Amino acid sequence: MPSTGSPPRQPGEPIVVPPGLSGVAVTDTTIGDVRGQEGFYHYRQYSAVELAEQRTVEDVWHLLFEGELPDAQQRAEFVRQVRPMRHLSRGVRTALPAIARTRPAPLDGLRTALSLSGAADGLRPLWDLDEPARRADALRICAQVPTLLAAQHRLGKDLEPVPPRDDLSYAANYLFMLTGEEPSEQHAWAIERYLISTIDHGFNASTFTARVIASTGADVAACVVGAVGALSGPLHGGAPSRALDLLDAIGTPERIDSYLREQITSGERIMGFGHAVYRTEDPRSRLLRETAHQLGGQRVDFAVEVEARVLDLLAELKPERGLYTNVEFYAGVVMEDCGLPREMFTPTFASSRVIGWCAHILEQARERKIIRPGARYVGPPPPQPVPASA
Amino acid sequence: MPSTGSPPRQPGEPIVVPPGLSGVAVTDTTIGDVRGQEGFYHYRQYSAVELAEQRTVEDVWHLLFEGELPDAQQRAEFVRQVRPMRHLSRGVRTALPAIARTRPAPLDGLRTALSLSGAADGLRPLWDLDEPARRADALRICAQVPTLLAAQHRLGKDLEPVPPRDDLSYAANYLFMLTGEEPSEQHAWAIERYLISTIDHGFNASTFTARVIASTGADVAACVVGAVGALSGPLHGGAPSRALDLLDAIGTPERIDSYLREQITSGERIMGFGHAVYRTEDPRSRLLRETAHQLGGQRVDFAVEVEARVLDLLAELKPERGLYTNVEFYAGVVMEDCGLPREMFTPTFASSRVIGWCAHILEQARERKIIRPGARYVGPPPPQPVPASA
Repeated sequence: MPSTGSPPRQPGEPIVVPPGLSGVAVTDTTIGDVRGQEGFYHYRQYSAVELAEQRTVEDVWHLLFEGELPDAQQRAEFVRQVRPMRHLSRGVRTALPAIARTRPAPLDGLRTALSLSGAADGLRPLWDLDEPARRADALRICAQVPTLLAAQHRLGKDLEPVPPRDDLSYAANYLFMLTGEEPSEQHAWAIERYLISTIDHGFNASTFTARVIASTGADVAACVVGAVGALSGPLHGGAPSRALDLLDAIGTPERIDSYLREQITSGERIMGFGHAVYRTEDPRSRLLRETAHQLGGQRVDFAVEVEARVLDLLAELKPERGLYTNVEFYAGVVMEDCGLPREMFTPTFASSRVIGWCAHILEQARERKIIRPGARYVGPPPPQPVPASA
Repeated sequence: MPSTGSPPRQPGEPIVVPPGLSGVAVTDTTIGDVRGQEGFYHYRQYSAVELAEQRTVEDVWHLLFEGELPDAQQRAEFVRQVRPMRHLSRGVRTALPAIARTRPAPLDGLRTALSLSGAADGLRPLWDLDEPARRADALRICAQVPTLLAAQHRLGKDLEPVPPRDDLSYAANYLFMLTGEEPSEQHAWAIERYLISTIDHGFNASTFTARVIASTGADVAACVVGAVGALSGPLHGGAPSRALDLLDAIGTPERIDSYLREQITSGERIMGFGHAVYRTEDPRSRLLRETAHQLGGQRVDFAVEVEARVLDLLAELKPERGLYTNVEFYAGVVMEDCGLPREMFTPTFASSRVIGWCAHILEQARERKIIRPGARYVGPPPPQPVPASA
């Protein structure tokens, strides 16, 4: 029964909810939340931004999977467990070139590679596993996403994949597998921050997709493959690369005003601004602006100038919209500074978000109840007799 | 705002709905519905069972995609359009052996092959396409599922895939691609009936998964790949092969009573009985029992005897449950009679259900609104200060 104080429904009469389930709480969670009015989001009881400033991906991964930040011994154990999981099985390594030869978009290639990897490694349905076994499968999938992404990226350029290194941090290893060179400490630090800040973000469409699939008792790969598909949708993932495209299109400081004014008055969306949930600045934007400043790359001053003018012009021309900078804007700047190619920006986002998806999958699996909504049939009433075949 | 007559919510206060969205109508649809109390389900305004008795898969496919049954000319055009789509592109054909070498379960292999095929064929996001282009992509995905299934099945046995034949009906071509031999008319007729009866069935978890992904504007392959993942969950797909396992386990008529009584009293589920929605006999079960009778295979009399005793014993031992025969029980008998191997039973189900998924994907794409529910955070309140790293 609904807890909304509605009158008792007639048997079979559906509860009708707003389109897109907007504002509908479909479950309870202890993983985290987004407070759009306050410009605040959290993982468990901690500010996600503070975690990004102070911790590693692996610490936060432990927090999401285990419910608590690790102490020194737990951290050492966790690292010992998950880093060897970065390596792909021989069967998967052998099959990847055939996928890469079809030249998929990176996120689509990840979807195929993950699907293959889950099946090749014989992942069993969540429904048939106990908690430790489910957790082990989820850890492995999370550990393998960066490896699969980097391998597919290199194969797509006719380069040999670079095997993971267990002595490197999450971000440093990812950058190493992409380029074959150990990244600078500063680049690894900046990408680690970015990755932590994007691990989870409430009940977005990909997270919900992962949970719906998990609710059927399917295996972890099936859930994550579905989530990657949802993330590939233009209404979901966003694309940090488009914010850089905007900077490119403007070109020089003196063109900022004329370019933006024309875009906004002609009704074009300004990439990197506006968010479905935030009614303030996206807290990830603040974090990544500061990160970009610390990296001190060539774009940051120009980006800051553009941002300030966009906000001024939006306040002037679209005051009713309340649009603020979102995660994309400085994420693009940071990733470019760290040498990531643009086509890998959204896949890099997926490489940390998978940890959030998996925390939600594990939480959903504990509910052991299928998600099976209804719909209201509004077509011509049945049964009409089937006309004879012409 | 909800239409449930609830009092106005405070801003930010979520609408809380029953777990699993049970009884919650998340959208309007004109595709069809299931009336669980009446034991009736329909596609558009027609009884699905009547359609299965009187029409072809392609007629019903046209009904679901176009909203109406085809006349003679429309049928000829539709057939001319979709049958050539059964053929896989060269890039996909070349990559399939690498997937098959990892020996995936058939449904997992389909998931990978579909993901690969969508990316290799360069499917574009639904969001970027107009209605005819979306429809064309959906037609191609539906047409390719049987081909991908049959190819993977044969490759898994180290046999060459058999290319599709455009002169054969949907079911006849499927059986032909599996075995390399043209099936008897009776087998093609029976499988065609089964396929039609399973094309759609309300808002189950895989259909909902497809719609959530479609709501992000992702491409059709991303949506269907997610749906296949949901179908692989033990709480969703069911498994017609398990009903045959039951017949095997009983073995002979004189063991029916003792076997069933022990299973039921020890709390074991009897496969092929009970359904989440039907409170009567599953109408697909009636259709497939009759189909099995007409095929006149070796199992049907035994199956009928077992069914009668199961229903008697369930009524005696679990009267409060109201359990009836579901689609699985006779589906297994029919598919076995037609020579399908057991591991292909659920994949065969997917080969028709993809048509229903795609009709829902096209309907969802027209809404152009992302499905983004919320959740209620019930963990320790944030923000707690992040403790210093140990």
